[in-house]
Parts: sequence; structure tokens; C-alpha cells
Amino acid sequence: MQHDTTFLDDLGLGADQVSVGDADRDQRSHDWGTAREDGVRPDVVVWPESTADVASILGAATDHGVPVTPYAAGTSLEGNAVPIEGGITLDMTRMDAVLDVRPDDLQIDVQPGILGDEVNEAVAKHGLFLPALPSSGAISTIGGMLANDASGMKTVKYGEVSDWVLGMEVVLPTGEVITTGSKAVKTSSGYDLGDLIVGSEGTLGVITRVTIQLAGRPQQIRGGRAHFETLDDAAEAVFDAVRSGVDVAKIELIDRLSAAMSNAHLDTDLPDVPMVFVEFHADHGIEDEIDFCRTVFEAHGVTEFEVAENDRGMDDLWAARRELAEALEPYDEDLSPLTPGDVTVPISEYPGIIRYAKDLGEREGFLIPCFGHAGDGNLHYAVMVDPDDPADVAHGKEVSRRIVERAIELGGTSTGEHGIGLGKQDYLVQEHGEAAVDAMRSIKKALDPAGIMNPGKVFDGPDA
Amino acid sequence: MQHDTTFLDDLGLGADQVSVGDADRDQRSHDWGTAREDGVRPDVVVWPESTADVASILGAATDHGVPVTPYAAGTSLEGNAVPIEGGITLDMTRMDAVLDVRPDDLQIDVQPGILGDEVNEAVAKHGLFLPALPSSGAISTIGGMLANDASGMKTVKYGEVSDWVLGMEVVLPTGEVITTGSKAVKTSSGYDLGDLIVGSEGTLGVITRVTIQLAGRPQQIRGGRAHFETLDDAAEAVFDAVRSGVDVAKIELIDRLSAAMSNAHLDTDLPDVPMVFVEFHADHGIEDEIDFCRTVFEAHGVTEFEVAENDRGMDDLWAARRELAEALEPYDEDLSPLTPGDVTVPISEYPGIIRYAKDLGEREGFLIPCFGHAGDGNLHYAVMVDPDDPADVAHGKEVSRRIVERAIELGGTSTGEHGIGLGKQDYLVQEHGEAAVDAMRSIKKALDPAGIMNPGKVFDGPDA
Repeated sequence: MQHDTTFLDDLGLGADQVSVGDADRDQRSHDWGTAREDGVRPDVVVWPESTADVASILGAATDHGVPVTPYAAGTSLEGNAVPIEGGITLDMTRMDAVLDVRPDDLQIDVQPGILGDEVNEAVAKHGLFLPALPSSGAISTIGGMLANDASGMKTVKYGEVSDWVLGMEVVLPTGEVITTGSKAVKTSSGYDLGDLIVGSEGTLGVITRVTIQLAGRPQQIRGGRAHFETLDDAAEAVFDAVRSGVDVAKIELIDRLSAAMSNAHLDTDLPDVPMVFVEFHADHGIEDEIDFCRTVFEAHGVTEFEVAENDRGMDDLWAARRELAEALEPYDEDLSPLTPGDVTVPISEYPGIIRYAKDLGEREGFLIPCFGHAGDGNLHYAVMVDPDDPADVAHGKEVSRRIVERAIELGGTSTGEHGIGLGKQDYLVQEHGEAAVDAMRSIKKALDPAGIMNPGKVFDGPDA
Repeated sequence: MQHDTTFLDDLGLGADQVSVGDADRDQRSHDWGTAREDGVRPDVVVWPESTADVASILGAATDHGVPVTPYAAGTSLEGNAVPIEGGITLDMTRMDAVLDVRPDDLQIDVQPGILGDEVNEAVAKHGLFLPALPSSGAISTIGGMLANDASGMKTVKYGEVSDWVLGMEVVLPTGEVITTGSKAVKTSSGYDLGDLIVGSEGTLGVITRVTIQLAGRPQQIRGGRAHFETLDDAAEAVFDAVRSGVDVAKIELIDRLSAAMSNAHLDTDLPDVPMVFVEFHADHGIEDEIDFCRTVFEAHGVTEFEVAENDRGMDDLWAARRELAEALEPYDEDLSPLTPGDVTVPISEYPGIIRYAKDLGEREGFLIPCFGHAGDGNLHYAVMVDPDDPADVAHGKEVSRRIVERAIELGGTSTGEHGIGLGKQDYLVQEHGEAAVDAMRSIKKALDPAGIMNPGKVFDGPDA
């Protein structure tokens, strides 16, 4: 696709802010979950360095009808940042500054291109942290997290990243700059534009500043690992812990296959059993909470429940869970994982959806390692296919589709934290109904009359 | 105002679902915070009994261009539910059923007309509760709370009511029925229409079903009261408690004037000092948390800090705070309170905004009792005026306006939990900027093309 982007020359951008080089364009033609497809790449990559840059680029792009796709770390998994209609890719990584730290208010203002972990580094000396940060904080940006409504391991206790955002500055597709929210912890003033922008995957505008609420780091952190005889026992134990109100900051499950994959390619020596990883955060009474959790796990036949006394012990127990996704690819040289599933169901259905996925894999002849943020009912799974066999790939995708549809039937969602992007568009109407999707489209049209912002995402594939 | 609402006859509603009686119309011509104005009342009151009723009424109203204003308990304070353009008032109070309780998932589905406390009653036997419920739960409905983005005393620990909503069914102004969210605790699927509907004050549609996430009741609840020498000490103590991460479920401040008003007209015997009321919720370690709070308060010269051992003792200590608003009117027969202020500021500015309000009242000659949800930086205040003296009323409103503008200057908001309605429209642009308000208007137009839903609220007064 070729768009005329010569209008960029008139915007006063520096020479180092614009590139039509092949390497720059190729690098931003795909994301972590999307293979590069022929013909998909931006016509030009632009690095804005200020809100004013973003505003002038978007305003001009609306005038000229040229697509703009925001891009940052590229760690999205559903093609959310892939510029399928070409045009301008707006690389936000130079807007990565800490703008203000207000320790008394437990607040920080940042630009969107900052990495999650850099936020924590900026406030560590004040004893503060961003509680809901996903474990991908080392590699993904705050802007990308908010655009895709990210969450992660600590969501079971602390909610989603967006729950910690008080206000944002956003450039609308027309180039208008708006602010949302305030610096107060709550407001009932006007429509909540902030929560509309969150999760809209760059289709409604570009986030240029974020005010984040932080929390004091807990005085006590303890982590542990529980072993169970069966996957069913492990899943039921997680369900029971959540139902019973065990106050965990993380509660993650992995099946035996995931453990084996980890042992094969990460530096781990995990037992051949289903496991539940837990972490507790408290200022007081952490031992009581751990004891409570142990009681719940014992009711589900836990065979071992070890809780570490210190950080190193915790790291040892937690080994494998963090890097698990990286162990999938090298496990079998003939197999590759499809884009990982991200279904989320009510917690009572969590044991059932795992059982469904495992049984289906067995029946249809696929390895399907299962893991994920069990306490949220968020199941990640990877259908392993032979990438050189189109029939096997198609069959694997069909298996994955059935798991997603099962999750939706159970009252859940096709995506708990990765967004719709390109990969989950088939489920949007199934999940929300035609009328709700029409309402989303009408909002899109109201805020982006020229349809320039990240076209083809959320609603429509490239051909729509 | 007179609209032709004869089309209602064709919708198959029961005779007892429609009234043009004066009493029914008069009762819904004002809310708790808005005096009844001449000429403002609905042409007709309709009681829908199902989602289908709501859909057919809204669809027909859009076709005929007749305004529809949702109304429930009428406890809003800013005129949010006042039908200033006449037309149909949609009384939602018959849609008050519990539709489903799922204790394993800690979830309940309700219709919007249910009172907050009725939700808690429905789930009490399962040991569950709706943590963010405001203290007005006995008199206000879930639908009204969500429409106005309500919160309250427990927001400091548990967030806003809407933070506990997973999904909703909403009838759009065109009569289309949509669902938002899911029954999973998180989702990244599509635009977050739910959080857009929340706080839109009935201008974007009518909520007809709500899926609420609940929590287990804490095993330990303790409440107490702290006395300070000066209002400044009390406010600084609250600020320090929040900054230090004291885990309170409620932390409320009242000034000496509020205490005196309470003693004059409620059955209380409060000391003549500024006070901070606290409540702690925990499963473990509550004594440690109380001790931590005591340490913080001592640094601000607390003169007494009593914590009750049981519910009765807690009720005694907390006497006055809950019914305080009712003590304002009878305090002085020559004075009435203006609609209470609802400003919210970053917590570091909380001592400053109280000081500003008190000093201004003193300088301008007004009694201004101050109270509110201190831990959120949410200040309620009431400027006491002579209602029979228009100049005094105007002067009092000007004083109130200066407090609101000061809060906005400090990075705060004109309304923390009551909404914009009619009363706060002057501040909308000041707070959000023209571009953001334009974006809100364009969304309103996209979802409500005929402009029938609660016209004149949020954006435009009756004359706009």
C-alpha cells in the first residue's frame, strides 16, 4: 500500500524523526504474535517527540486521509500495532520521559513510551510501586499497556493497569488535544473518556501523557509453590482460594506439559506435576494468610506447599513461570505454538475450561500447554502445530477457536488482556452482539471521522 | 412544556404503568438537591417492568423526538434526574429484582431499581457484600449510583461502585439493547462501553441489568474516632495516613461546626473538637493496622483515639457522621444549606482546600460546615445562606463557586461522586477543556441522534 505522506515535510519535524528506510519499516510491520505478511508495512515511520508533534501529524493525516498506527515496543500479540493499511507508523518510544513525581500524592506523570519497569524505578526511592504492572514491564510500554487494556499476574489483587490511571492527555484523530480525568482519585465529572480510550487499541487517538496512582510497597512479600496430583485438583484449589477470599497478590497455574517444556529449555528442574505458584503481599499478618491458603489447598490434596523465606528462595520456586512463553517454541523442532490463547471465564468455570482445553487437545491430537493467571480465570494456552503443514495449522486454529467459543458460552471473554487486534475480530460480535459493536463503530466514527487511526483493528479485518 | 406522548398508548403497557396524575408528576419534578421550579415536570410518568418495555419506550421516543429522563429514588443532588424539558419520566423502581446470585463466583445480577442495601441483604447469607456501597445504600438505587458514578465512605479502600460492575445490559436511546463487559473479572475485548455509560447520568441510555462482583465480608471490622486540637491537625493527619499507606476502609473528617450542628439536632453528644472517624477491615492483623494508624495520628497531636471493641461501641463512636447532612437544615431557622459541595483534590491538597473553604467562609461571613470522605480528598461543605434573601443566596453561591474553582486549580474535580447534572455544568469546560467536552458531545450525538435522553444534563442547561 502506498500513501502520499509528503505533507509530513511541512510539519517542522527533524530529519531524524522521519524514516522511509527498509529496516525501520520492516521492524514495525509485525508484532510479537503476528508473523510478517507480504505487503504489510508502513510507508513511513515517524518518531514524535512531543504532544505538539503528535497533534500536528494526526491533524494533517486526517486532512489527507492517511492511516496512522501507533507503535511502541511491538510486544502486542494480536497484531494490534501492525499497520495493515500502510501509511504512517507513529513510533512513540522517544516520548518516554518521567514528567513529574509527586510522592506525597503517590502519583507520577509519564509519557507513554516509558517502559513499565522504568516507572517503578523512578518511584522506588519513595517506597512506591505500580501494583498492577504485568510481568512484561521490562519490555512493554505504559502507552501500549493502556491501549490494549493490559493486566497480568498481580491483577487478582490489584486490578488492571488502567485501574491505576487517574488522568491522561490524548491526541484525538483530528489533532485536538484532550485531557481526561484529573489528579484526584475519583471524579464524577462528565463522560469517562479515559476508560473509553483504554483498550481502544489506538483506534481512537494517541495517549501522550499519563497520570498514574501508585501504592506503597508492601512490607511483607512471600512467594511459594504448591504441587497437586491432578490438574483438576490444582484448578479446583485455585477456584476455592479465590472463592474463600485468600488474599493472594499472584496465583498462577501451570500444567505438567508446561513444566516439561520449561525443564527442556529453561534452567529449571520442575517436578512432573501440575503446580500453582502464589505470592502474598501484606503489611501485617502474612503468616496467617499463608496458613489460610494452606488449609484451602489441603482440601484439594496438595502434595507439597513450599513458601520461601526470602527473595532468592522465592525466585527459585517461581522459576519457569515468568519465562514460560519462551520455552514453547524450542520444545519440539517440528512444532510451533499458535498465538497464545487469552480466554477468561468466571472463576467457577476455570477448572472446566482447562479440562475442556486439555480434553480437546487430546482428542484432536494436539499438545496444548496450559498456564496463566488462574486467579482471574484467565487461561493462556498454546496449540502446538506443525507450521509447515497448512492442514495442521488450520486444524490447530479450529481447536483454538472452539476453546474461545466455549469460554464465551461460559460467560467469559475471548481476551482477558491482549486485546482484539486482528486475531480476535471473529469473536467480537459473538461476545458483545451486533448492537454493541454498532455502538462501538458509531463512537469510532464520531471521534475519527476520516477513519485514519489504526484502521482495520478491533472491528474490521483488512478487507472490510 | 408539553410533548405529545400519545404514542405510549400503542406500546402495550399496562394501565398501571402510565400516569399523568399531578402527584406522580410533581414527585418526579425535582431531586434531593434541587428545589422544584415552576414549569418543570414530566408530561407523563412511565414505570417500565422489563427491558422490553424500556426498549419500546425509548425506540418510540426517538421516533417522536420526545425527551426521556430516567428516575429512580430521586436522591441525586445536582438535578441529575430532573426532567427540565418535560416529556417522559421513566421511573425505574419497579425493575428492582435480584435476577441471579452466583456465590461461587461472588457475583449477583440485579435490575437497576434495587436499593444498594437490598443487594447486600440478598448476598449476606453467603458471607458476601458489595464493598464500595455508599452509606446512602438504604435509600438509593444501583442504577442511580452507576448513572452518577457514585462512591462513598469506603471508596478509600474499595474504589467506586462502578469498580465492582463486570457487565451491564443497557438500552440505547434508539431502543437497541446492548450488553457490556462479561462475567469474567477482566476483559480487553472491544471498547469499554460500560465505563462510558457509568457517569453519563442517563444521557446515553438506560441501564436495565447489572452484574456485580462482590467480596467476602472481612473477618475483622473495628471502628474508631480520633480528636485533634485544630482542623489543620486533623486534615494533615488524614493526609499522612493516606500517604503512609494506613489500610483504612473509611476515614472521614468533620469540623467543630459540623459537630455542633449534629449535637443540636441529632441524638449525639460530640466534643467541641475536629474529629476523624476511621474504620478498619481485615482478615488478619487488624490490631497492627490500628497501632500503625495511632502512630501516624500521634505525630499530628491526636488528643484522643478511641477504637471500639464491638459493633455497638462503633456505632456510638460513629454517631453523627452518617446522618450529618440531615442536621444542616434545622440548625438555624434563618439559614438553609446550599446544595453541598463535592469537590475532590489530590490528597496532598486536602488540608489546603479545607483551610481555603473555612477562611473564605470567615472572610465572607458564612457558616460553612466541612465534612466528607477525607481519605479520597473528597470535601463536602455546605454554605449556609438566608434563603429569603436573594443577595445572600447569590453571595453564598459565589463563595461556593470559588471553592470549586480552587479545587480545579489544584488538579482536582468539581464533583467527586454527585455528578454534573444541572448544578455543575459551569465547571465542565473549565475542568476538561473545550476539546474534551466537544468529544463528549460527539459521543452523545452518535449514540443519541434524536437527543432524547435526559436532555440538558451534563452539557447544556435548559437554555442552551
